[in-house]
Amino acid sequence: MREGIVRIGVVAPASRIDVSVADRVAALGRRLYPDHSPEIVFHPQCFLSSGHFAGDDEARARAFLEVANDDSFDALWFARGGYGACRLGEPLLPALTAAAREKTYLGYSDAGFLLAGLYRQGFPGVTHGPMPADINRPGGETAVARALAFLVDGAADRPESAPAAAFNITILSHLLGTPFEPDLSGHVLMLEEVSEHLYAIDRALFHLTSTPSIRRVAGIKLGRCSDIPPNQPDFGQNAEEIARHWCAVSGIPYLGRADIGHDIDNKVVPFGRWRVRRSS
Amino acid sequence: MREGIVRIGVVAPASRIDVSVADRVAALGRRLYPDHSPEIVFHPQCFLSSGHFAGDDEARARAFLEVANDDSFDALWFARGGYGACRLGEPLLPALTAAAREKTYLGYSDAGFLLAGLYRQGFPGVTHGPMPADINRPGGETAVARALAFLVDGAADRPESAPAAAFNITILSHLLGTPFEPDLSGHVLMLEEVSEHLYAIDRALFHLTSTPSIRRVAGIKLGRCSDIPPNQPDFGQNAEEIARHWCAVSGIPYLGRADIGHDIDNKVVPFGRWRVRRSS
Repeated sequence: MREGIVRIGVVAPASRIDVSVADRVAALGRRLYPDHSPEIVFHPQCFLSSGHFAGDDEARARAFLEVANDDSFDALWFARGGYGACRLGEPLLPALTAAAREKTYLGYSDAGFLLAGLYRQGFPGVTHGPMPADINRPGGETAVARALAFLVDGAADRPESAPAAAFNITILSHLLGTPFEPDLSGHVLMLEEVSEHLYAIDRALFHLTSTPSIRRVAGIKLGRCSDIPPNQPDFGQNAEEIARHWCAVSGIPYLGRADIGHDIDNKVVPFGRWRVRRSS
Repeated sequence: MREGIVRIGVVAPASRIDVSVADRVAALGRRLYPDHSPEIVFHPQCFLSSGHFAGDDEARARAFLEVANDDSFDALWFARGGYGACRLGEPLLPALTAAAREKTYLGYSDAGFLLAGLYRQGFPGVTHGPMPADINRPGGETAVARALAFLVDGAADRPESAPAAAFNITILSHLLGTPFEPDLSGHVLMLEEVSEHLYAIDRALFHLTSTPSIRRVAGIKLGRCSDIPPNQPDFGQNAEEIARHWCAVSGIPYLGRADIGHDIDNKVVPFGRWRVRRSS
C-alpha cells in the first residue's frame, strides 16, 4: 500500500458486471484524483457468470473473503446489486478476520444482506452508497464520483445526529430474523425501493413495522421508490402515504424523506453514529 | 341454522370479487348438494371497492369479525386472495370470540396472513384450500367443488401423519416475526408460489429457511410455482432445485412435492394434525 493511496477491492456477491464498467470507473478515479488516484482492483470474480450470478456461490464467497481479509485493501466496494448476496451464506461471517473488521464496505440494494450481517458483527465501516455499476445510469458518473469522494476523502452527507442505517425495503424484509439481522434499536432507518408494485411495498412495510425489533428504531425516513410497475387496480395510496400508514399503525415515528434510492442522487450513509472516517 | 345444513359466510379481507362469482358459486352449491345445499352467504363487503382492496381496512375488518363471531355460521370462507389481509391488523385477533374459535376457515394465498394468525391462536379449523374466486379459472368448478366437499362433508386429502400447514412462500416470508407467525415446529410445511421471479422465490426461501423458528419444521414439501416471469439472465435452477438447495443448506428435510398451488388442482390441507371434521 503506497502512502496516501487508497486501495479499493471490488467484488460482486450478487450479479455480474461488464469489464467496461471496471474500465470506466478506474478511468474516472484517475481523472478525479490525478495526484492521488485510488487503486481500484476489480476481482476477476466480478466478470464471472453462473446463471443469475457473478460466478457460483463458492466463487463469490471466496472472492469476498479474499478482499475482505486482505489488509492491503482499505475498502471493499460492492460492484452492483441484482440478487445473490444472501447466498454467500452464514459460514461467510465467521470466516472474516481482523483485517476485515478494519475495512470500509460500500454498497446498497442487494448488498444490504451483507452490510446488515457485517453491521450485526459490529464492523465500524459499513456504508450505504453508490456502486461501480451505477456508472451505467444516465449521468451515473455523478453517483460513482460521490462514492469515490467517500472512499478516497471520507466525504459523506450525514445530517443525522442519531445513528443511521439505510436499506432496500425488500432486502431488509427478507433478512429479518436471520443471522444477518443487525440491531437497529435507536437508529434512523432509511428505506428505499425499486421496481416493486405498491402492494408489495405495502406488504413489506407491514412486515418491517410489525416486527418487534424494528419497532425499536428511532424512526423511519422514506427514500425514493422508483420504477414502480402499475398497480391493478390503482392502489389508492402512494409510497409515502403507505409509509406514513404503517408508521402510524406501529407507533414508529415517521421522519420524512431520505435522499437515497436507485438513482444517481443516492447519497452515502455510513451506518451507525456519524464520525469522520478516512480509509487511508 | 337448519338441521344438517351447513352455513358458510364469505368475506374478502384482501381484493374484491364480482357479484357473478357469488352467483355461480351459490348455484354450484345447489347443483352439487340438491338435498342439503349449503347456505352460502356472501357478505356485501366482498363487492366493495377501495383502491386495491374490497373496501377500506375498517370495512374489511368489520365484515371479518361479523362472520367470524356469528355462531350461526359454521365456516368462514375467504372470497379470494390478491393482497390486503395483513392490513386487518393486530387488533383483529384479540376481537375474536368463542364462536370464532369453533369455525372452519378456508382460503389460501394472501389469506395465509389470517390463517397463520388464527392458527397461532390455537384455532382448530384453519384450512388451506380453494376459494370462491377460483371459479373464474378455466375448469374452476372443480376447485370450488373440492372446497365445498370439505365445507359440507369434511372431505380432504391428507396423506400426512405429521401435522401440516400450507402457505404461499411470499406470504409466509412476510409474516415471520410478526404477531401472525404460528408455531410450525414439527409440521410438514407445504409451500407454493405464483407470479414471482425465480430470484424472488430463491430470496424468500433463503428467508424462510434461515429463520430459526422455520428450521424446527419436520420438513418442506414444494407445491406448484406457476406463472413465473422470465428471469434475466436465466436463473440456472428451477423452483424445485432452489427448494432442495435451501433445505440442504439449512438442514431442513426436503420431502418432495405437495399437490397445492394457484390452480384448480389445489388441494384442501387442514392445518395441524389430521382428523375428520364436519362443519355441521
